[in-house]
Amino acid sequence: MSRLIALLTDYGYADTYVAQLKAVLMHMAPQAVLLDITHEVPACNIRSGAYLLSTVVPYLPEGTVIIAVVDPGVGSKRRAVAVRGARHLYVAPDNGLLSLALRIDPPQHAVVLDNPRYFLPRVSSTFHGRDIFAPVAAHLVNGTPLEQLGSAIETQSLQVLENLDPEIHEGYIITHPLHADRFGNLIFDLHEDVFQRWLLPGGAVLVEFASEIIPLKQTFSDVEVGKPVAYFGSSAHLEIAVNTDSAVNYFKLRMPIQENARVRLL
Amino acid sequence: MSRLIALLTDYGYADTYVAQLKAVLMHMAPQAVLLDITHEVPACNIRSGAYLLSTVVPYLPEGTVIIAVVDPGVGSKRRAVAVRGARHLYVAPDNGLLSLALRIDPPQHAVVLDNPRYFLPRVSSTFHGRDIFAPVAAHLVNGTPLEQLGSAIETQSLQVLENLDPEIHEGYIITHPLHADRFGNLIFDLHEDVFQRWLLPGGAVLVEFASEIIPLKQTFSDVEVGKPVAYFGSSAHLEIAVNTDSAVNYFKLRMPIQENARVRLL
Amino acid sequence: MSRLIALLTDYGYADTYVAQLKAVLMHMAPQAVLLDITHEVPACNIRSGAYLLSTVVPYLPEGTVIIAVVDPGVGSKRRAVAVRGARHLYVAPDNGLLSLALRIDPPQHAVVLDNPRYFLPRVSSTFHGRDIFAPVAAHLVNGTPLEQLGSAIETQSLQVLENLDPEIHEGYIITHPLHADRFGNLIFDLHEDVFQRWLLPGGAVLVEFASEIIPLKQTFSDVEVGKPVAYFGSSAHLEIAVNTDSAVNYFKLRMPIQENARVRLL
Repeated sequence: MSRLIALLTDYGYADTYVAQLKAVLMHMAPQAVLLDITHEVPACNIRSGAYLLSTVVPYLPEGTVIIAVVDPGVGSKRRAVAVRGARHLYVAPDNGLLSLALRIDPPQHAVVLDNPRYFLPRVSSTFHGRDIFAPVAAHLVNGTPLEQLGSAIETQSLQVLENLDPEIHEGYIITHPLHADRFGNLIFDLHEDVFQRWLLPGGAVLVEFASEIIPLKQTFSDVEVGKPVAYFGSSAHLEIAVNTDSAVNYFKLRMPIQENARVRLL
Repeated sequence: MSRLIALLTDYGYADTYVAQLKAVLMHMAPQAVLLDITHEVPACNIRSGAYLLSTVVPYLPEGTVIIAVVDPGVGSKRRAVAVRGARHLYVAPDNGLLSLALRIDPPQHAVVLDNPRYFLPRVSSTFHGRDIFAPVAAHLVNGTPLEQLGSAIETQSLQVLENLDPEIHEGYIITHPLHADRFGNLIFDLHEDVFQRWLLPGGAVLVEFASEIIPLKQTFSDVEVGKPVAYFGSSAHLEIAVNTDSAVNYFKLRMPIQENARVRLL
Repeated sequence: MSRLIALLTDYGYADTYVAQLKAVLMHMAPQAVLLDITHEVPACNIRSGAYLLSTVVPYLPEGTVIIAVVDPGVGSKRRAVAVRGARHLYVAPDNGLLSLALRIDPPQHAVVLDNPRYFLPRVSSTFHGRDIFAPVAAHLVNGTPLEQLGSAIETQSLQVLENLDPEIHEGYIITHPLHADRFGNLIFDLHEDVFQRWLLPGGAVLVEFASEIIPLKQTFSDVEVGKPVAYFGSSAHLEIAVNTDSAVNYFKLRMPIQENARVRLL
């Protein structure tokens, strides 16, 4: 069992929401080591959160306890869950935030967090990160079995986001946006391995996005400054960027990004 | 004794002021575990800093050493102090920054930091966080008794900020702003427990702020998008927010917030 | 050998690039303690990064492993290197980023990172921080000798930035900008010790910058609000600031700063 607790939220760094959550962890599990995945998921953007979480999951040491909180439904009837994957443990609202992580790390067992004995004594209506998710994660890292934290649910019943897979056709692929990073680069759900299996050896493609034709290159500096370019980025997903500029600004996109891209055989 | 050192400053994350302070801590007390409360207190805003610190104090493990530095008077004659509370130890400028923390964690003993033996050899005129507060905190976590770090002072002599308590009247309460968070929510000095004791069972209230009448609800989503709302937030203080907007922008407020709110019986 | 790994990058906090790098470290060297120097070096600004790194180097415990990544040439032919200084170990692109750190901590031995055995199995073309620098640093903290990580190179062959020393003349000094901090203060390459050796006892000076005459004072509050001032800051370098304003805005400067300052005997 790792002592590592990794945290992903949309709380930001300016206030003390992250610190309150961490203080609960350090209080209840003083031996824990904390790792910030990020606290700047765009506010309430579950889809970006799901993508960002999935970029770190493959690199974490086995047995990491992950707290993920992007939770626009806090206080409503959405479930809070704990999930054991093949490699890690997850504590999160059941709103699709774990969708992409659990593809990489298939769920073995899940419970709904319905046992207040593992919460803080006073649970606020808006801050379940501090009052529910942190104490439950501390119990996990202290060795409480996941099965004990709540009632078992089917792992197939966990919420899954829509449009996480590219639509593969014979001559083209439709791929959906997952995230825009802080440089304004757009990241899509087409993985390089899927693309390579689809592409015939020697085949050539171009990318269509927002009525523009965009070349597929190795990296963003393979086009002129100010020009758009597509490439497979460090997470092996298709990205659209503009050399030394923001693709979000260049294409005048609104957040969250809704526009699909089309990869087309020449 | 905890090994935990918790840090609150207005240094921000873009430069290396926080890292220089932490490097001194890791050098002098390698066994220490560091926890960031926040480093984005609005610059020189002692009142916000006092509030933010107080939100974390109840959750920290007993014996935490807290370094708090929001210090517009650095280099002037303001005192630097170390304080032992009932639960934690504090190292800070004596400018009111500890006012709210020490209400939750009453001071038992205080010293003025007048013994340069516990400072870095070369003390700059502008960076006491690195040169005085960090080494003093390292000595504390290493076991040096607080009494040894400087001359004893009366805990009653510690600076206290003004207007930290609501003015309770028979038919209304005046409450003072403490902080505006990064979402533009306004947080006031009226605690839910004080409010409940004042309110007769079955009583109903409304909130007046900036010439508007604002309903008191459970949470911000209990009003229409774009409308102002009052509720008791996750720190149990009265907050005024605007659903999916910033109350700071909505009310065209200048920072730091000066306007009081009035809670009035119907 | 310290267990401390200190990190400086321009990756920012909004995405998970820092977390991916840290996850690799925690996976490969679970006993390591991580310290963020900063991740908000202005994007691709090697000069600012070199300065920021140098402000922390004197305070870190001996034997710290430092990963520094500001790497506009990633994927090109720039070398990746590991360097043993008199006090610390460094892993970085060979682009001048270590220039100022290695003046304080003179290099004893350097290798070019040409042994993929110490990298992640799959090296991306754009994210050497995660795929090369992090695993190499983990090997160092795990006790692999630096000599084993790659082929020896002359320490004199390491890239050095230009204009890191003031030009000393009889009646004046020309000093070059190193960095603008988040408050808009300008930091120059003139160190207080160099200045004091140059200045005759009792001598008086003024500073010329962007066609203005600026007084040299103890600290920024020694001039009226809104007025520019020069002083030696907490890193002992000459700084130009504007009391309660940004010097970058006041002088309408573009980033990165190119304008030199002149210190002149009266």
